[in-house]
Amino acid sequence: MPVDIPSGAPAAIATPTAGDIRLARLSLNQWTTRHWSLPDLVAGLGRAGIGHVGLWREPVQAYGIAESAALVQRAGLHVSSLCRGGFLTGDDSVQAHADNVAAIEEAAELEADCLVLVVGGMDRADQPRLDVAEARKRVADRLAELVPVAHRHGVRLALEPLHPMYCADRAVLSTLGQAIDLAEPFPSEDVGVVVDTFHVWWDPDLERQIRRAGDRIASYQLAEWVLPLQQDVLLSRGMMGDGYADFASITRWVSDAGYDGPVEVEIFNEAVWQADPVEVVETVARRYVQHVQPSLS
Amino acid sequence: MPVDIPSGAPAAIATPTAGDIRLARLSLNQWTTRHWSLPDLVAGLGRAGIGHVGLWREPVQAYGIAESAALVQRAGLHVSSLCRGGFLTGDDSVQAHADNVAAIEEAAELEADCLVLVVGGMDRADQPRLDVAEARKRVADRLAELVPVAHRHGVRLALEPLHPMYCADRAVLSTLGQAIDLAEPFPSEDVGVVVDTFHVWWDPDLERQIRRAGDRIASYQLAEWVLPLQQDVLLSRGMMGDGYADFASITRWVSDAGYDGPVEVEIFNEAVWQADPVEVVETVARRYVQHVQPSLS
Repeated sequence: MPVDIPSGAPAAIATPTAGDIRLARLSLNQWTTRHWSLPDLVAGLGRAGIGHVGLWREPVQAYGIAESAALVQRAGLHVSSLCRGGFLTGDDSVQAHADNVAAIEEAAELEADCLVLVVGGMDRADQPRLDVAEARKRVADRLAELVPVAHRHGVRLALEPLHPMYCADRAVLSTLGQAIDLAEPFPSEDVGVVVDTFHVWWDPDLERQIRRAGDRIASYQLAEWVLPLQQDVLLSRGMMGDGYADFASITRWVSDAGYDGPVEVEIFNEAVWQADPVEVVETVARRYVQHVQPSLS
Repeated sequence: MPVDIPSGAPAAIATPTAGDIRLARLSLNQWTTRHWSLPDLVAGLGRAGIGHVGLWREPVQAYGIAESAALVQRAGLHVSSLCRGGFLTGDDSVQAHADNVAAIEEAAELEADCLVLVVGGMDRADQPRLDVAEARKRVADRLAELVPVAHRHGVRLALEPLHPMYCADRAVLSTLGQAIDLAEPFPSEDVGVVVDTFHVWWDPDLERQIRRAGDRIASYQLAEWVLPLQQDVLLSRGMMGDGYADFASITRWVSDAGYDGPVEVEIFNEAVWQADPVEVVETVARRYVQHVQPSLS
């Protein structure tokens, strides 16, 4: 698998072990080791000394919400995010709202730092697609309906800008600046934003927007921009250090903006998924200590 | 080939014929019908009543610069753009500069409205890649060396922001706003910007940046965002009306900003290239009259 130390990098980076203070803020998103069951994930994180986890609704639902919550709490794991709600651009606003309410309830039960929202794209079943401005208007309107529900449950919504190549089919929210604009009408503790390196690394306005985001930053996620893009571009997220993102600068900006929460590694990648999850977690920890952790303050 | 009228659209749009006033501003980029020789292209545009053409350096060089200039001028064709110079991020600044000077001379001889610049990515032969900030700094520095040369030749440089998915390997210039920032130190007649619908349609700041661009708009190019993305994402540009871009709004913004020049259709797409070029030109003209021309003022 293509997740080893790249040539040119210091060769002697040892895998950090449990108890290493440098891992204190590292979180692993569940989908990075998606073939692990929830108990295997929890055990694996324990062995590696990783204290935070990002969870996904589908495997949590399959295991049982209460059971999942009990499992992570018993292990002393802290849930850095629940992925995900959103999809606010569809035709059936009643169904979308109900599903988001369920996601909010799940996030509350898991005591997750935030519920990540992927806002949805422009296509609609059996109807002409929305133009991008209509779709964005719809996101704003439906977000406003969701915020009071989240507030009542003490759950923070986290708007995730996705790379512009997903604008048509996944998320019409394309830049961090746009996410902040969308969040601003609401209190920061109710609506935050996600900074995901894969989605935003290219943005010439990124430093300024991260500073502007300040205490709106609800989640800091890591994945690398690697080339070539995969046929399924959702699976193009690589391991830190294998590609083009400037993790040192982005991490410093996020720190300087005041973010002091978990730093969550979320990689969708067939080669990573095919690898031994224990090795994946080791590589994640090593690359994190090499490329990211030194820039945290 | 997937370039016919989509279902749901008015079925009875006739192909506009030569002399149709609605085609007065239409330009065809040579690469849209790339298998045509230059004489075939010139003849085909004449039959279709299209008076502007966007040319590419390689086929023009192959045919001969002076011969190409004579051919298009004899046919009464106006050259809306020459593609392309740029690639300013490489290691050998002497070679890049020399090649760009040659491109400027060619644009002058062809009396092209502008020389399109694709600024280059982050990779370097046999050396660690540049980080994105370094690469952008390099573009600004080398552009400054090029502007006096272009000015002496009476050639307008046109900075083209490319879709952020090309940031790593093709162009670290990713938004129209960033292109304007880069152009602003120079007179508008020396350095303009390209608005290409495929590259910028997703940008939540687009309307504002087009207004800000004003008389810096040196070229307005059309291609559609179609899904799925092709394995070679350079070839994902589709025919207007087959995808997601809002041509009516973008065209109105460009018009309102004062742009009254040619509107150039530039499609890289295997299905389009495999089709009969005569049919491609007919489809281009029909889609242009359907989706774009009514929004020009």
